[in-house]
Amino acid sequence: MLRLYIGNKNYSSWSMRAGVLLRQAGIEFEEVMLRFDSFGEGSRFKTALAQVSPAQTVPVLVDEDFAVWDSLAIAEYVAERFPARQLWPQDGRARARARSVCAEMHSGFSALRHHCPMNIEALLPEAGAQVWREQAQVRADIARIVAIWTELLAQHPHAEGMLFGRFSIADAFFAPVCMRITTYALPVSEVAEAYMARVRALPAVRAWIDEALGEQDFVAFDEPYRTGRG
Amino acid sequence: MLRLYIGNKNYSSWSMRAGVLLRQAGIEFEEVMLRFDSFGEGSRFKTALAQVSPAQTVPVLVDEDFAVWDSLAIAEYVAERFPARQLWPQDGRARARARSVCAEMHSGFSALRHHCPMNIEALLPEAGAQVWREQAQVRADIARIVAIWTELLAQHPHAEGMLFGRFSIADAFFAPVCMRITTYALPVSEVAEAYMARVRALPAVRAWIDEALGEQDFVAFDEPYRTGRG
Ligand SMILES: N[C@@H](CCC(=O)N[C@@H](CS)C(=O)NCC(=O)O)C(=O)O
Ligand SMILES: N[C@@H](CCC(=O)N[C@@H](CS)C(=O)NCC(=O)O)C(=O)O
Repeated sequence: MLRLYIGNKNYSSWSMRAGVLLRQAGIEFEEVMLRFDSFGEGSRFKTALAQVSPAQTVPVLVDEDFAVWDSLAIAEYVAERFPARQLWPQDGRARARARSVCAEMHSGFSALRHHCPMNIEALLPEAGAQVWREQAQVRADIARIVAIWTELLAQHPHAEGMLFGRFSIADAFFAPVCMRITTYALPVSEVAEAYMARVRALPAVRAWIDEALGEQDFVAFDEPYRTGRG
Repeated sequence: MLRLYIGNKNYSSWSMRAGVLLRQAGIEFEEVMLRFDSFGEGSRFKTALAQVSPAQTVPVLVDEDFAVWDSLAIAEYVAERFPARQLWPQDGRARARARSVCAEMHSGFSALRHHCPMNIEALLPEAGAQVWREQAQVRADIARIVAIWTELLAQHPHAEGMLFGRFSIADAFFAPVCMRITTYALPVSEVAEAYMARVRALPAVRAWIDEALGEQDFVAFDEPYRTGRG
């Protein structure tokens, strides 16, 4: 039995990768939400999480009694455990390229992460416009993301229109970025807009968004631009 | 033919992971150093790198005509291409755990990275002591790293004394951290000190350190604490 521990769907971008991946792949799992109160020691979130993983972050996938943490390690674990789902591209070079862009995403894009925290429920075009004007590094992050998408989509034409043709781990990894670009109305190319629309239309992404919209928590440390839900 | 593009051995922590991994695994490759002048557009470093990889960072592994970037994706690529070297642990759960700690390292520990940039040639115990006093997040990063090492070493007792018994990708990923702890003389447990000594004694790590010591560049943007080489 697989159990996935996640944070708030509205805010937890790392959780979203794992949640979307498992659900879109049709893998059965039980979902346990550890709602964010704070990341401080003694917080409800950290206290519950300490029972599950020493890394003290969500997502965590627990397989029977074995904990796998970190969204990228979870993706690799699931890809190995369910080879028939072909969660990585089957071609060796395409797989290597998918890992390059996922690992690049995993360790980079700190300006975008910092200035545009994921907040699915919010629409913050004015904050986004100001960030866009003032933060050259955010513009550079977005330019790089659009370049990645544009090149991969051109290389892997396919009815599903995902980065490597069919849905793969790479699409799950970029799904939170799609949410950020939408919330902050960051300007991207038509090719990128169309890809984002396809990602938002994936059943697992739609379900995640719907559930995020249904949440009530206002998590102040993830809200540099608001004082309450809209 | 494999070619690995790296930055300065003294400073480039991400390059060190890939360089140490390939060399310690006994994989033949040609090494090309792109020395850091700046990371600005038009810099010599970026201009040379643009010929090789769209991600514009080192390390990059080029296999014939195919570029794999990002140290974690390079590690996965090499592990797939040379399965006999067993670069990940063979046991499924141990492999998953190795990926968890590598991916955790890959995307985290930003306080340690920021305040204690890798600088193999330098000895900066006073800067380190000040960082240690003032930066709670650096202390937390080190506590987490020591906890990871301690748990893994206890779980995988072995003559080689590496994190998963024999040398694996995980040790290559933590090698730059060993360099940081040494340069800034950050206080760690005896178990951690002993592990670090074993890592420094790996032939590939010794070679990397020797070559770092032989370099002459002083890269100002990686030197918050010095105005010239000691
Ligand atoms: N690299 C980790 C990062 C996970 C992460 O930082 N998650 C956030 C929530 S979105 C968290 O749990 N933060 C708690 C903390 O930083 O103390 C992954 O990919 O799973
Ligand atoms: N996640 C990448 C990070 C690589 C990285 O940031 N490398 C640095 C040098 S150590 C670099 O090339 N920086 C250039 C830049 O940031 O523009 C990896 O693991 O390879």
